[in-house]
Amino acid sequence: MEGLRVGMLGCGAVGTGVARLLVEHGRPVRDRAGVPIALQRVAVRDVTRKRDPAVDPTMVSGDAAAVVADPEVDVVVEVMGGIEPARSLILEAIRLGKPVVTANKELLAAHGGELFDAADAAGVDLRFEAAVGGAIPIVAPLKESLAGDRLRRVLGIVNGTTNYVLWRMASTGAGYAEALAEATELGYAEPDPSADVEGFDAAAKCAILASLAFNTRVAAGDVYREGITDVTAADIQAARRMGYTVKLLAIAEEIDGEVSARVHPAMVPDAHPLAGVTEAYNAVFVEGDAVGRLMFYGRGAGGRPTGSAVLGDLVAVARARQQGAKGVGCTCVYRRRVRGMADVDTQYYVALDVADRPGVLAQVAAVFAEHGVSIRSVLQRGKGEEAQLVLVTHLAREGAVQRVLEGLRGLPVVGNLASAMRVEGEEADEVLGW
Amino acid sequence: MEGLRVGMLGCGAVGTGVARLLVEHGRPVRDRAGVPIALQRVAVRDVTRKRDPAVDPTMVSGDAAAVVADPEVDVVVEVMGGIEPARSLILEAIRLGKPVVTANKELLAAHGGELFDAADAAGVDLRFEAAVGGAIPIVAPLKESLAGDRLRRVLGIVNGTTNYVLWRMASTGAGYAEALAEATELGYAEPDPSADVEGFDAAAKCAILASLAFNTRVAAGDVYREGITDVTAADIQAARRMGYTVKLLAIAEEIDGEVSARVHPAMVPDAHPLAGVTEAYNAVFVEGDAVGRLMFYGRGAGGRPTGSAVLGDLVAVARARQQGAKGVGCTCVYRRRVRGMADVDTQYYVALDVADRPGVLAQVAAVFAEHGVSIRSVLQRGKGEEAQLVLVTHLAREGAVQRVLEGLRGLPVVGNLASAMRVEGEEADEVLGW
Repeated sequence: MEGLRVGMLGCGAVGTGVARLLVEHGRPVRDRAGVPIALQRVAVRDVTRKRDPAVDPTMVSGDAAAVVADPEVDVVVEVMGGIEPARSLILEAIRLGKPVVTANKELLAAHGGELFDAADAAGVDLRFEAAVGGAIPIVAPLKESLAGDRLRRVLGIVNGTTNYVLWRMASTGAGYAEALAEATELGYAEPDPSADVEGFDAAAKCAILASLAFNTRVAAGDVYREGITDVTAADIQAARRMGYTVKLLAIAEEIDGEVSARVHPAMVPDAHPLAGVTEAYNAVFVEGDAVGRLMFYGRGAGGRPTGSAVLGDLVAVARARQQGAKGVGCTCVYRRRVRGMADVDTQYYVALDVADRPGVLAQVAAVFAEHGVSIRSVLQRGKGEEAQLVLVTHLAREGAVQRVLEGLRGLPVVGNLASAMRVEGEEADEVLGW
Repeated sequence: MEGLRVGMLGCGAVGTGVARLLVEHGRPVRDRAGVPIALQRVAVRDVTRKRDPAVDPTMVSGDAAAVVADPEVDVVVEVMGGIEPARSLILEAIRLGKPVVTANKELLAAHGGELFDAADAAGVDLRFEAAVGGAIPIVAPLKESLAGDRLRRVLGIVNGTTNYVLWRMASTGAGYAEALAEATELGYAEPDPSADVEGFDAAAKCAILASLAFNTRVAAGDVYREGITDVTAADIQAARRMGYTVKLLAIAEEIDGEVSARVHPAMVPDAHPLAGVTEAYNAVFVEGDAVGRLMFYGRGAGGRPTGSAVLGDLVAVARARQQGAKGVGCTCVYRRRVRGMADVDTQYYVALDVADRPGVLAQVAAVFAEHGVSIRSVLQRGKGEEAQLVLVTHLAREGAVQRVLEGLRGLPVVGNLASAMRVEGEEADEVLGW
């Protein structure tokens, strides 16, 4: 039986991982796929650079279009990243009837619609397990295993760098800058960390998760986004005292037929499975009508873990070819409206530095009441000029909470709005009606 | 486009879950599957019993063979359980070229080889996502997403009843009998709980997990099995003091090309993701060469969660039919030897009631040394006649440890072998060479 010949675009960490795994796991991959899968050609930017021995120098070319067009290439693996030329190369591969496996979350989040439409029209497979959650199988479960359920919400820790930074801040008491410096030194953060710490990477993955979970199309630009740059050591310690852990979450929800997609730091109850996700690990927590709560946990980055996800997709492509199946890109049935952040229900933790005198709580509570935001718990810490009021709200419209925060900032008895952070994963049972 | 017409065998909790979800989620299921999926006929043992309104009485029949044979049935869902007549009915469906979706772990663990061979020979899909881990997508990830990796070990909490009992023992200090009584009262344990508490259910799932992870065939009878009936409140409290949580684990490992499959209670370090799996939740932890550590977590039982897994399989069957793909039952390439328990490496926690006098530790240590079992840590608790030695070994052959335990029981300075339990999930890094 004929093997599957791979044309790979890009050969950085993930590409090298794919090349090495194809060599090291050649036998088990062949056994699972039914045919051998091997690299045929590799397109790189710099042909002079020294490569891993798994990449035969005679395969390497600087001409990506030629790799896509090569009749001896059966399937295209795109691990170059970025928008162009990745987008054009993938469209060309689809036009030629070649299945595509990509790890490019940025491209999918920006131009997924165009790519999936092209793949569906051509009956060509477009697979992207590696684009979200690295080694974690989450794309296939959302598209296939959970296809019989009605999903309600997806909460993901989908960026390892920020999880590492927040975890170090919590475990050592370090500030943001110090923890980030450590992450950079250990290779968990890039020299320019902005795509990670400002939430762009998580937002792209959030768009993909929302699209998969709700069978619709959400683009990265539709995702509300806050990074972790403003999270302070004090926020994290305060969360800890209240039994919460601070995580950067990618949240996709269905609300009355609309979709909300957002990325921001949030306090998660310590008993929630997401709170225990430490180091640079990723996890995706799914709430569905029938399945209840599911969580998928694993390594979200790295050449070998991500490469393994690419290989899983290659095995699926090889099997589909033998079964004579035409490809399915991505069934996207609905055109759902993306709800603006102000109209999403959120729960908040608010800490206020206040003067400890009679009537303060009444004045503070009045601001919440004025905007219809209901308070779940209040705690006063400290005394005199050092006093702090710590409040946790019930679920309320984000817009209303923002008006409350505005009102609190203008209140003379409030010295300082020390902290305001959303709380997630707490009122889930209520939301789901359990 | 023509719909997929389901013939369902059995209509207990899972069958009713499937029927209800097909009605409630009809629209999203159709959108994912590309065609409507609907119940056509249902075979039950007792046709007079009152059923859920989702099950149209005109569909119900006492003749399961007629349901399988009905030309208006495109796919057979087997949720009746047990070996016969389930086995014969599935074989007949395959003979007729009808895809089969089953939740029957007992049957698969006993006769999987025969069923998969028949399905493969006929080019018919035989799917069983619901057989392990209920709602948790674990079968498809092991067969497909992780097909590019070389898996080393799978550790599963795959029985909700025993997890609930052990969790209650740990959180309330209750003994086994008391916690089981509570589980029975709350419906987490069956009136006759032996299949759960003696580890038979977990052993069937362990056989399936081992077969999937290592691309081979392991039957339930190949699985070493100990239940939780001998776990005492003292074991659990002792584990707790040492930073461990007691879990009933299903463990499948590849060792030098052979496979080990076993079910037994084990102490898991509190920091291990499996330690945080509470209540009746299930989780499957996977260690692979490239992926590192993955965990899948969710509800392992219940009509709706398990029904949702059946629906996911039905959606896959519907899609494959539209794509014109012939089925793949289960690629099983290797005939791996199943290693006997005595030749498996395990790590042990051992507690000994000893007399607190000079030379005791030397005598105890000599027994370990005699059988080549290396001690990682020793702790003495208490004084005088109340003293207890608590030892944790390094990984050693199970057979050698059993000889050590034998030797310790015969040692005059040892008053009582208070506890001996395997420790899992601790030396993983060492094993994987991380």
